Amino acid sequence: MSVFRTVRGMRDFLPQEAAILRSVEEKARRVAELYGYGEIVTPIVESYELLAAKAGEEVKSRMFVFKDLGGRDVALRPEFTASVARLVATTLRNQPRPFRLFSVGSVYRYDEPQKGRHREIRQSNYELMGSEAPIADAEIVLLTNSLMQACGLRNCVFKVGHVGVLRGIFDEENLEDKVQDAIMQLMDKKQYDDAFTMLENSGVSAKCIKILKELVKLKGQEIFDVVKKMQSLVEGYGKAAEASKNLFQILRIIYESACDLDISVDAGFARGLEYYTGMIFEVNVPDLDIALGGGGRYDKLIKLFGGESTPAVGVAHGLDRIILAMQEQKVLPDAKLEKSVAVIPVDEKLNGEALKIAQLLRDAGVRVEVEVVGRKMAKALEDANRRAMDFAVIVGERELKEGAVVLRDLKKRAQQTVKVNAIAGVVRN
Amino acid sequence: MSVFRTVRGMRDFLPQEAAILRSVEEKARRVAELYGYGEIVTPIVESYELLAAKAGEEVKSRMFVFKDLGGRDVALRPEFTASVARLVATTLRNQPRPFRLFSVGSVYRYDEPQKGRHREIRQSNYELMGSEAPIADAEIVLLTNSLMQACGLRNCVFKVGHVGVLRGIFDEENLEDKVQDAIMQLMDKKQYDDAFTMLENSGVSAKCIKILKELVKLKGQEIFDVVKKMQSLVEGYGKAAEASKNLFQILRIIYESACDLDISVDAGFARGLEYYTGMIFEVNVPDLDIALGGGGRYDKLIKLFGGESTPAVGVAHGLDRIILAMQEQKVLPDAKLEKSVAVIPVDEKLNGEALKIAQLLRDAGVRVEVEVVGRKMAKALEDANRRAMDFAVIVGERELKEGAVVLRDLKKRAQQTVKVNAIAGVVRN
Repeated sequence: MSVFRTVRGMRDFLPQEAAILRSVEEKARRVAELYGYGEIVTPIVESYELLAAKAGEEVKSRMFVFKDLGGRDVALRPEFTASVARLVATTLRNQPRPFRLFSVGSVYRYDEPQKGRHREIRQSNYELMGSEAPIADAEIVLLTNSLMQACGLRNCVFKVGHVGVLRGIFDEENLEDKVQDAIMQLMDKKQYDDAFTMLENSGVSAKCIKILKELVKLKGQEIFDVVKKMQSLVEGYGKAAEASKNLFQILRIIYESACDLDISVDAGFARGLEYYTGMIFEVNVPDLDIALGGGGRYDKLIKLFGGESTPAVGVAHGLDRIILAMQEQKVLPDAKLEKSVAVIPVDEKLNGEALKIAQLLRDAGVRVEVEVVGRKMAKALEDANRRAMDFAVIVGERELKEGAVVLRDLKKRAQQTVKVNAIAGVVRN
Repeated sequence: MSVFRTVRGMRDFLPQEAAILRSVEEKARRVAELYGYGEIVTPIVESYELLAAKAGEEVKSRMFVFKDLGGRDVALRPEFTASVARLVATTLRNQPRPFRLFSVGSVYRYDEPQKGRHREIRQSNYELMGSEAPIADAEIVLLTNSLMQACGLRNCVFKVGHVGVLRGIFDEENLEDKVQDAIMQLMDKKQYDDAFTMLENSGVSAKCIKILKELVKLKGQEIFDVVKKMQSLVEGYGKAAEASKNLFQILRIIYESACDLDISVDAGFARGLEYYTGMIFEVNVPDLDIALGGGGRYDKLIKLFGGESTPAVGVAHGLDRIILAMQEQKVLPDAKLEKSVAVIPVDEKLNGEALKIAQLLRDAGVRVEVEVVGRKMAKALEDANRRAMDFAVIVGERELKEGAVVLRDLKKRAQQTVKVNAIAGVVRN
């Protein structure tokens, strides 16, 4: 029956895939611990109004929106930041600043499914609340680098820009916020011609357009040269000049941390989410043409959600994409090599005894599968072999009278009679 | 703004609560490993038709149902079993039986929120596919006991029954499935009077009603006595007699496993889900008036979903309720006691150096928070103290010239100058 498939865009993780997902989640959690980010768990279902508040048209149009049975307008979260901002504006209102929060789980976007793009997306998310200093921006970038390293990924390139440079120019040209947002979105999609047409129609100065055309071409890995060129280009636009100085400071701190990141500065870099106010970045690997993660500074969001004005910087990483990249780079972790034992009673009268022995072994940390279909010994052993188990414990009446069982080493194809309380020791050696 | 709250029935886990949730999830995962259950991760959004197929009216009426942007009728899963059955009927169709599957995550039900009841529910779920033998039923019960023990819970009582006893009688009385389902639901809610009225109106024999009235009163911890009484009560109803024999076998194996469970047999026990066909059970603690978990045998579900006929037995545990019970019994795990260090540069010119030292410590497995708001030293130290950090590393120009920093033990209120590469060693001792 065709309805008994996953819904389009959704997918299953089978045991091997699930083990990899969980191990990457665990790495993300470990990075959070090492950097002092406390984990929070927020609901997948949130009020539509909350999620839509600063989501941007693009994200809003792809949300899973519905009414719950109480008639509330709700949606599946398309990202973590709105939920985190809600918490910071309410429950954590009086938490002394700065503080750091971590989330991991799934978010939902109605995108066209393709390689690396699903509608149920696994993310790790880190937010640093209460600092406007460049070192906070630097930390979020370095933390991302730590996660990439923990996953064994090589050749990561960080693309870094600063929303404040473009916004600073637009502001001084008195461009309406709505038009600014629309232009940033076009630039995010690299539709520069459309962006410039819109700019020209909006009555900004010729100088402004000239500078912007230079800016969008300005990028490269000679990061300090690039930022200096930015600075001289935007001279005269006070807020833009400040923004490029801020970007310079962030990059200098990262450089001085000696963490040796590959960074490319991109002066025309924009990101789809409208709430960014400062530095923005993405991390990429050459093996994949979609970013593995991205984030930036958003200093106005918490206040907008009714909280105390709180500068903030954060990042989200796409775990599905990280796993894809690990696959491409052949650095997926090996399956665990814990010893496993099949416990097989010779007769079903000994089922209880078999379970008793299984429990003893589990208490000693051994993975045990008990024969539950009552197959003949040969069949059961064949099955244990097929599933690459290490040992079989054969529970028979004769040995049991002596407090013993037959322990068969399935790899060495050898067997011995072993006292029940000695099995775990033999298996684990 | 009132919209910026969690949606009714949903809730946040703050860092301490989230750490407990994750630790219980980890215990559930460990039990799965020890019993050979491979973890799978299935989508939270599934087709409505799949989830509704055998959900029972009760569950169906409380599902979060909606249309996705492609017009598909979808819902948030109210439980894991339908998704697992879908996998077993499709992707895992050719997987040699028996096999064991584990899931952990959230499910969604529009219940009235109260203590231990939310609309986003965290569950662990275990399913054993391909065995109809009593030892498989026993394993699912014992595995539940292992999880309760791993969580440190005491005084657990297992309530055990068998759907096949009641269904066996109904079948022989030629009672329609729909009426059977309705009666089982009433019995699940302990509305016995209504159940009997419905039975009387459905034209079953007087003998049947007499037996059922005896059965619903039959319960107790003298489990073998209770089952023997069941067996003599249902004599003459072939399938019901078989079912009570099956229950006897399951209980005997559990007893012989010497795992020492507190079991109460309840002959009139019914569970809301309509797909059960055999043994059913729940686990309770006296501290809480809701079950911590429950499950049973469902031998017809996989076939119903288009798969090969596959006997199956499974269980789901409510992690939120387990945590509540741990709280009541005061066995919640202590927070981790990993050493934590605040790294504080004397001057913001040293921010890069501070990050470099932080990275060194993290590489050595130390949890580090870098001063990111540029506070005066006294303020920053005060804050580190307030947050119960163990050490502060004070990064100053003078010491740095010698490759050293000042390491302050915040608990002992003592400080010393330490070479940078020796900090981790001192901190971890």
